[in-house]
Amino acid sequence: MLIMGVDPGTAITGYGVIEYTGSDFKLVECGAVRTRAELPLYKRLHTLYTDLTELISYHKPDQYAVEELFFNKNTRTALAVGHARGVALLAGANAGLDVFEYTPLQVKQSVVGYGRAEKKQVQYMVKTMLNLLQVPKPDDAADALAVAICHAHHVPNMGRVSL
Amino acid sequence: MLIMGVDPGTAITGYGVIEYTGSDFKLVECGAVRTRAELPLYKRLHTLYTDLTELISYHKPDQYAVEELFFNKNTRTALAVGHARGVALLAGANAGLDVFEYTPLQVKQSVVGYGRAEKKQVQYMVKTMLNLLQVPKPDDAADALAVAICHAHHVPNMGRVSL
Repeated sequence: MLIMGVDPGTAITGYGVIEYTGSDFKLVECGAVRTRAELPLYKRLHTLYTDLTELISYHKPDQYAVEELFFNKNTRTALAVGHARGVALLAGANAGLDVFEYTPLQVKQSVVGYGRAEKKQVQYMVKTMLNLLQVPKPDDAADALAVAICHAHHVPNMGRVSL
Repeated sequence: MLIMGVDPGTAITGYGVIEYTGSDFKLVECGAVRTRAELPLYKRLHTLYTDLTELISYHKPDQYAVEELFFNKNTRTALAVGHARGVALLAGANAGLDVFEYTPLQVKQSVVGYGRAEKKQVQYMVKTMLNLLQVPKPDDAADALAVAICHAHHVPNMGRVSL
C-alpha cells in the first residue's frame, strides 16, 4: 500500500510517499513544495495545488493523509496555514482519494509512542523506521513522512490483510 | 465587464456576479454555496471548489474578487475560514483569472463610503446600486455582491475605456 503524507504550509509544504507492507516501511519519495513569497497568495496556492496534484498523479497513492494544525495563538498564522491546508485537502479530494487527518499529537504518539515528543525524536524515528542513513531534509519532508507512518498505523487490520 | 465577487466560508460561501459598464451596475446572478456540516472537511472543500468552478465556467467573469478575512480572535474560526478562502482563491486561479482581494474595510469604504459602516448599510447600498426591490438573500450573497462592486470601483479608468 502506498501512502502519501502532507505537512501543509504556504511557504513550504512537505510531502512524503511510503510503501507499507503491513510490517515494513519503505521510502518512495519525499521532498517539499516551495512557493515564492513575492507572488500573490492565489498564485502561491495555485503552485501548491498543481505540484501536489502532479505528485498524486505520478505516485498514485492508495491513501492520503494531511497533518492537522495546532491552534497557534496567532490568528494571522492560523489563517495563512489554513489557506494552504485547504488546498492540500482539496488536491487529495479532487484526485478521488479518501483523505485522512491527524493532529500533531496523534503523529507523535504514533511514531514515537509519546504525544509530547520533541521534533528531533520524531525525525530520528522516521529515519530509523524507513532505514535511512540520515534524517530526510527539509524538516517538512520528514514531518510529512511521519504523517504517512502515522496513517499506516491507523489503517485497520492492514497487516492481517496482506500477510 | 463581468465581475464575480466571493465571500468565503466553510458552511456557506456567498457569490455574486454583476455587469459593470463603467457607470452602471446590473445584477447577473447571486446566491450561496452551502456544504453539509456532517461531511468531512475535504468533501466540503471539494463541493465548494466544484460549485465555484462551475459558476466561473458558466458566467465567464472577466474579473474575480474575494473578500479578505478580518482577524478574529478565535484561531479555530480563522483556520476554518482559511481553508474555504484558500479554495475560493484557487478556483479563480485554476480558471486562469486574475484574482483580487479586498478587506471588509475596503468593501465598506467603497460601497457605503465609510469603513466602519454597519452590515445593514452595506446591504442597503447593494440593493440601491443594483436597482433591486429587496436586499439579496442570504446575507452572504449580498456581501459577495458588495465585494464585486468594490472591485468595480478599483478597476483603473474602467469608465473611460468603455464610455
